[in-house]
Amino acid sequence: MSKLVGLIFISFVVLLSACSSSEATVSMSLSIEDAMNIRKKSNELPLLEKSINTMEAEVNALMAQEIDVPVPRDAGGGYTHERHKKNGAAIYQAATLYQVTGDEKYADFATDLLLKYAQLYPQLGPHPQHKHQAAGKLFWQILNDAVWLVYVIQGYDQLQAVLTEDQKSIIETNLLHPYVKYLSVDSSETFNKVHNHGTWAAAAVGMTGLVLGNQDYVDIALKGSDKSGNSGFLKQIDSLFSPDGYYTEGPYYQRYALMPFVVFARALDRVQPQWEIFKYRDGVLLKAIYACINLSYNNRFFPLNDAIKDKGLDTIELVHGVDIAYALTKDPGLLAIAENQNQVIVNGDGLLVAQGIAAKQKKDFIFKSILYRDGAAGDEGGVAVLRSNNAESALVVKAAGQGMGHGHFDRLGFLYYDHGTEVISDYGAARYLNVVTKRGGIYLPENKTWAKQSIAHNTLVVDERSHFNGKLAKASETSGQVTFFSGKLNALTASEKNAYPGVTFERTMGLIHTTLLDSPLLIDIMKINSSEKHQYDLPFYYNGQLTFISGKPEIAMNRMETLGEDNGYQHLWNKGQLSVDNSTTQLTWLNGNRFYSLNTLLPSDGEVIFAELGANDPEFNLRRENALVLRQADRSDAYFVSVIESHGEYNGVKEYTLQPTSNVASLSHQMEQDASLLFVNLVGGGRIVIAKADEVDASLQHTLSVSGKTYEWQGHLAVFEEATNESE
Amino acid sequence: MSKLVGLIFISFVVLLSACSSSEATVSMSLSIEDAMNIRKKSNELPLLEKSINTMEAEVNALMAQEIDVPVPRDAGGGYTHERHKKNGAAIYQAATLYQVTGDEKYADFATDLLLKYAQLYPQLGPHPQHKHQAAGKLFWQILNDAVWLVYVIQGYDQLQAVLTEDQKSIIETNLLHPYVKYLSVDSSETFNKVHNHGTWAAAAVGMTGLVLGNQDYVDIALKGSDKSGNSGFLKQIDSLFSPDGYYTEGPYYQRYALMPFVVFARALDRVQPQWEIFKYRDGVLLKAIYACINLSYNNRFFPLNDAIKDKGLDTIELVHGVDIAYALTKDPGLLAIAENQNQVIVNGDGLLVAQGIAAKQKKDFIFKSILYRDGAAGDEGGVAVLRSNNAESALVVKAAGQGMGHGHFDRLGFLYYDHGTEVISDYGAARYLNVVTKRGGIYLPENKTWAKQSIAHNTLVVDERSHFNGKLAKASETSGQVTFFSGKLNALTASEKNAYPGVTFERTMGLIHTTLLDSPLLIDIMKINSSEKHQYDLPFYYNGQLTFISGKPEIAMNRMETLGEDNGYQHLWNKGQLSVDNSTTQLTWLNGNRFYSLNTLLPSDGEVIFAELGANDPEFNLRRENALVLRQADRSDAYFVSVIESHGEYNGVKEYTLQPTSNVASLSHQMEQDASLLFVNLVGGGRIVIAKADEVDASLQHTLSVSGKTYEWQGHLAVFEEATNESE
Repeated sequence: MSKLVGLIFISFVVLLSACSSSEATVSMSLSIEDAMNIRKKSNELPLLEKSINTMEAEVNALMAQEIDVPVPRDAGGGYTHERHKKNGAAIYQAATLYQVTGDEKYADFATDLLLKYAQLYPQLGPHPQHKHQAAGKLFWQILNDAVWLVYVIQGYDQLQAVLTEDQKSIIETNLLHPYVKYLSVDSSETFNKVHNHGTWAAAAVGMTGLVLGNQDYVDIALKGSDKSGNSGFLKQIDSLFSPDGYYTEGPYYQRYALMPFVVFARALDRVQPQWEIFKYRDGVLLKAIYACINLSYNNRFFPLNDAIKDKGLDTIELVHGVDIAYALTKDPGLLAIAENQNQVIVNGDGLLVAQGIAAKQKKDFIFKSILYRDGAAGDEGGVAVLRSNNAESALVVKAAGQGMGHGHFDRLGFLYYDHGTEVISDYGAARYLNVVTKRGGIYLPENKTWAKQSIAHNTLVVDERSHFNGKLAKASETSGQVTFFSGKLNALTASEKNAYPGVTFERTMGLIHTTLLDSPLLIDIMKINSSEKHQYDLPFYYNGQLTFISGKPEIAMNRMETLGEDNGYQHLWNKGQLSVDNSTTQLTWLNGNRFYSLNTLLPSDGEVIFAELGANDPEFNLRRENALVLRQADRSDAYFVSVIESHGEYNGVKEYTLQPTSNVASLSHQMEQDASLLFVNLVGGGRIVIAKADEVDASLQHTLSVSGKTYEWQGHLAVFEEATNESE
Repeated sequence: MSKLVGLIFISFVVLLSACSSSEATVSMSLSIEDAMNIRKKSNELPLLEKSINTMEAEVNALMAQEIDVPVPRDAGGGYTHERHKKNGAAIYQAATLYQVTGDEKYADFATDLLLKYAQLYPQLGPHPQHKHQAAGKLFWQILNDAVWLVYVIQGYDQLQAVLTEDQKSIIETNLLHPYVKYLSVDSSETFNKVHNHGTWAAAAVGMTGLVLGNQDYVDIALKGSDKSGNSGFLKQIDSLFSPDGYYTEGPYYQRYALMPFVVFARALDRVQPQWEIFKYRDGVLLKAIYACINLSYNNRFFPLNDAIKDKGLDTIELVHGVDIAYALTKDPGLLAIAENQNQVIVNGDGLLVAQGIAAKQKKDFIFKSILYRDGAAGDEGGVAVLRSNNAESALVVKAAGQGMGHGHFDRLGFLYYDHGTEVISDYGAARYLNVVTKRGGIYLPENKTWAKQSIAHNTLVVDERSHFNGKLAKASETSGQVTFFSGKLNALTASEKNAYPGVTFERTMGLIHTTLLDSPLLIDIMKINSSEKHQYDLPFYYNGQLTFISGKPEIAMNRMETLGEDNGYQHLWNKGQLSVDNSTTQLTWLNGNRFYSLNTLLPSDGEVIFAELGANDPEFNLRRENALVLRQADRSDAYFVSVIESHGEYNGVKEYTLQPTSNVASLSHQMEQDASLLFVNLVGGGRIVIAKADEVDASLQHTLSVSGKTYEWQGHLAVFEEATNESE
């Protein structure tokens, strides 16, 4: 293959475009003034200096090797894939280093690489490893090609002053223009997609237009190939974010998608400020950066939909996002995030952040309870994030749209974090990113057979079938609905009417602070309506080791079988079950140094199934996770009523254990015509009462009497505390 | 029960002893001079100040409550248990705080507590919750009673100046003397045990003798009830440590046992220095403190035998040990450990440590490869610790004595650590310390049925039976033997002749640095000799997710059964197996951000079994752990030859993966009459050759020729590097 390189190179040097970039333009990414300021001030700005040093170390390591611009051969994780990624980044990094250090070796290196690519590119056809994704030329999927150009064009931008006209001509003619053509014309389907792959392509093409002074490129990037505005960057901003800045694919892809949005927008803002792109649609791009930050716990994104759990606020996309947002807003809370990122982008925005931190202007970033509406119009449900007062706990409920192809069938599913860790967790994606021995690092078969299925989530599963029978098209037609959200009560109600024909379910959840308990109590009331009888399963994927079970389960001792046949059930081992008798069932586990108790009220024919992930897993692709599956069979209308308490401490070093049992003694649930009361009876006497009306109208008054005691409240939900258990 | 308290208290105030403590004595634990120095200097010594503040916070929290000295009722983890522990510590802490702050409220509080105990103690019989351990009075086992007195007598020591004669008389007559009598006379069996329970009792009684000026107590503590020296503290020093300072129960209990040894010894050294106790037996107590430090990785002790994995160098026992050792040696490496502990003991020794750290005298503690011989005479095998040059990796091989009742049947088992974490691990103990809902926090049934069994360890299991058929008495008669140890080669050979009648096995392991690989290679050559045919199993308990298997295993898809019936096998699920064909089998897993590959050479009828812990576990007592079990059935003489490589990097945040596959292409093993060659053939060409003679004699010359290439070496083991693979 390598024989191809260098073949009749000269014949490709043809003027493909009349545009010339020789006139002076405003730099898209790093102005000369900023570069000079960075050069002068970086030694007083530790974070900036560190970021430059890291960049230098990486580029120097690459410069110490032979330049290698190989003929593309490998899929993700393979040598040519990683090498082209590295080379692309190096063009940007070396050009930046030239600007901020003045050292010409960096300019020479970036130029050499660019010329090598100008030599290689014209000879390339579609990548040999392309699969069902659109093929790139340098990479197996065109997405990576677009990403590559976003970096490289920034490097090219910064090399303008040192490149000869001949070099520019070669690079533009043999690399940049054909590259843009491949992205925007030959791959117009991807280019015009309203999807993050389309955004990367738009950013690559648009930024190239800004640098080359090619308005045509800028216009098709902003408004699609036909410049109608039915596709392109502006349409993507319109469609892919909700009015609150939520990206419909979920936080993991929001992070990924964010990069081309904010980097292209910032470039556009510098070169063609007339677009006022950061004010576009009520400033939704800034909202999107904040949403990304808010959709995280302990520095990691909530792994909704297809998500790799490693990703968090320290990813490079968020470094860009935070630096840009700070430059635009000067919000001192962002400096706390930036400090945690321990890195800034080496440009004017990063300079401002480093200066802000050095000047000790940082304030805590306040994580608050917040509802992110989904859908372009904000009417496709949403993701609710409830945080405890000190932000030590977080409860996340997803009642949003499907989230396109990476969406999971998880309507009204939840995640619960406490004491820095996942307590009730979502599996995320079944994928080992870039690990070639795991099917080349792409999504594994178990992503479909397990991770996307409803039973893989902490939500209702009816008759062992996934929501919408696992059909994306059907699921994409509707969304969950958040009918009530109160940051003050720290609670919400969401409902789902479409996942199962004839079955509606509604979930009221809260992270309720009371004076009776030290920690907020997680409340979970799932109400199911159906005229037909069904089997209802509600799993809780707990992390940790069970330390207490009220009652004696029947456990699979010598032999284990799967919990079901299909829809994800085939991946769960049935470890046993606990039959329940209409009293409160209590299950306690130890997670790290903290105990958690699930208290739940099931009818007398209900059971708790102990399930473990890992069946039908011939390639060991699945992690071992454990669930408590609450089951009610042969029911029409039904409730699942549960309370999770965080309590106690296990200290193995100092050898003590505090409060290893729940403070909740029992639950009782009083259901009336159009309202209900959940009594959480505490061990030491006293109780917490959750009063809930079916109506969500905030103005309505409700009254309910139980055992001679009357509860009156206004609106959908109320919490009463009783220091002693008066009526029992 | 509480009505008993306070009953006719006055009638118990009877002079039981003629001894009086009213004459001035040298303080056992904190001299007036040290207390004054601490008072003056602590605000310049952050570590000391922090330790005092912590102590103050704990005591103030207890003082803010009502004093409670409850009638003993609960087992470990229960209220009265924890309260008495807390009260005992508080007597010591408050008395210390009085000395170092001069604040009389602390003296009053400690005095009040002591008087309350003097009131309660005479009324107590054996603890109601006592089980098969000897009963205490305040606690369910007498061990805890002894520990309590070790703290309390130090507190009493420091209160001498403020207590009235009447108070002293009450406390000594009603509490201290009867307490000593219960420990030493009524519970003489425990007191005279050569075992850590005996050491705690000896320390409690001996330290009480030092404070009360009762030489009789000191003498029986040092030489046993009959003062013959056949039992007691000196005998314990003679018997329980090897000449290298290794404690036969292993690091977890070494840490625990260390406390009474060093605290009593330090007290004795101050009051009766004529014993020269720290020079006793060639300074073995100091060696024991160093052994404890060396038997750890990343701050956690190697979990050999019954061990809770949380325990490490920051436990209070080691804080005592390190402070004492520093006071005696001024070794600046100990300051690094102390700094990591982030705490000092509030006495003269802690003052010295805090001063050393404040004066920046700290140096790195150097963890080196070391062999700890076991047995009082040092002839009962040992525990070998091999570390990589940078101490990033550690290989631990146990070929020691059984380790008494807490010993596991794990002859020639190993543990492997790398990049800060367990890679091949030992289960430790099946126990949730102090978690009352887990059978009161004591050792669980699975400790015997699983954790102690041979199959729970990374060592040879013959015919699915544990070493010595799991019989402690038989196992205690002999030990493994370390026949070769070289810190230079970083390798050892150990052998075991008694675990199975008619079968001997020998294991050569190393953590071998070469110029051909970045990381040291773990070498494992297990040689088995038997005239009869057997089934041989060799498990590797790996941590992480399998990412590559050479060959196609048959996996249990819908149904799983146990791997065996008994001896721990009943707790393992058989997830499937890979049949092998005499070529190199390769299994790679991802652990954190690092890949590990087990390369192994099995005969053509061999197999790799994928096993997962958790069968026959009705109370969810077992953690989910995974093993690769290498199996050869129907063999007499046999070899297991394996190499584990640490390689590559997975970076989910920055989205790259390096070297996810092993650098080892294949293994071959050339066995001759009395020597063998293991060829580790590398992917890039080149190979590493491990030459091994059966003889361990260091002076013998050996020669072996393979395919025309001759290898010559002296002594048992040699490593050759070949940059290119010359002879194949």
